[in-house]
Amino acid sequence: MSAGNPFPEDAEDTQTAIMRATFDALVEYGYAGLTIDRIDEFFPKSKSLLYHHYDGKDDLLVDFLSRMIDDYEAEIDCETPGDARERLDRWLDAIARPELAEEDRGFIRALVELRAQAAHDERYREHFTRSDRFFRGWLADIIADGIEEGVFREVDPEQVAATIHTIAGGVMTDRVTSDDPQVADVRAELDAYVEARLLAD
Amino acid sequence: MSAGNPFPEDAEDTQTAIMRATFDALVEYGYAGLTIDRIDEFFPKSKSLLYHHYDGKDDLLVDFLSRMIDDYEAEIDCETPGDARERLDRWLDAIARPELAEEDRGFIRALVELRAQAAHDERYREHFTRSDRFFRGWLADIIADGIEEGVFREVDPEQVAATIHTIAGGVMTDRVTSDDPQVADVRAELDAYVEARLLAD
Repeated sequence: MSAGNPFPEDAEDTQTAIMRATFDALVEYGYAGLTIDRIDEFFPKSKSLLYHHYDGKDDLLVDFLSRMIDDYEAEIDCETPGDARERLDRWLDAIARPELAEEDRGFIRALVELRAQAAHDERYREHFTRSDRFFRGWLADIIADGIEEGVFREVDPEQVAATIHTIAGGVMTDRVTSDDPQVADVRAELDAYVEARLLAD
Repeated sequence: MSAGNPFPEDAEDTQTAIMRATFDALVEYGYAGLTIDRIDEFFPKSKSLLYHHYDGKDDLLVDFLSRMIDDYEAEIDCETPGDARERLDRWLDAIARPELAEEDRGFIRALVELRAQAAHDERYREHFTRSDRFFRGWLADIIADGIEEGVFREVDPEQVAATIHTIAGGVMTDRVTSDDPQVADVRAELDAYVEARLLAD
């Protein structure tokens, strides 16, 4: 969903500078290639600060993910206004636009690798549980608003939100783990789904 | 999709015995915890054979995945018959049944970790590209059959197949990387989707 590093370039505080360097290093090297030394390549302050603040790569990355979701939660209040249909379409475009900028690809690649860590590391699993709940809730609110506006049918907002969110996760994975992801087809089918299942007659 | 080890217990040939041991070790330890020594715990022959046949863990695992998909391709000819609606429902139950046996969970956990390797290892990416094409094709055939039977509307079979396949991938990931996956909701919404989008009037 992100275009470009969300952490400010001229951050004075060390924590934010670490987060910014971590983002850049993840885009460049992915999770598998990430080391503290490689984060340091993007870190303007002393490397010893990286070791001072964190016990290792995964400790740092779990904090990084937590900061990312904090920022999303703060951003939700600043969401561009619009009716529910417009907000849903923006969401669908964000998760399944056929073309992807190279920097976004780098970050998505890292996110897919980070998510897989949750299969065996409960710190990651706790993060993704929280993050999934947040995005599902955001989507469910849009669906509920659309029902209230009379634009969407009387569907179960949580059920629809869970499904769209699951598609979003699947698309992210497909984009970076297949040489032939069918994102344009999925985007077109999402429109057909909205038309057939959600739009009120 | 798999329940239990698909490789026979009494395999005489070394390759099949290696595949069987690899499956059991993946279910037990996941990708992250897998080592040749741990595969050997489930391998009745000499450990030196594991080193003789493969250059390392990833070399072995890519071959393992390739053997799995070979078996699926062979199985497709033995698919339980039925009309398109029944075959689709069986698929949807297989990918999104709310309850999951513990052994299936172990294998799905490993598959999600293996898929994430494709983000930085093109040998895995080649495998998942092939495997995705195979399952999408299988699904598209079911949709096309349903259109011919007059049960489904005149949808684009590839587009619908790509979307259901993407949901399947998303559900697999959610199951093992979140403490609160909404699989029952997704399963119910898949029924609503089939009803609203696919079923002919």
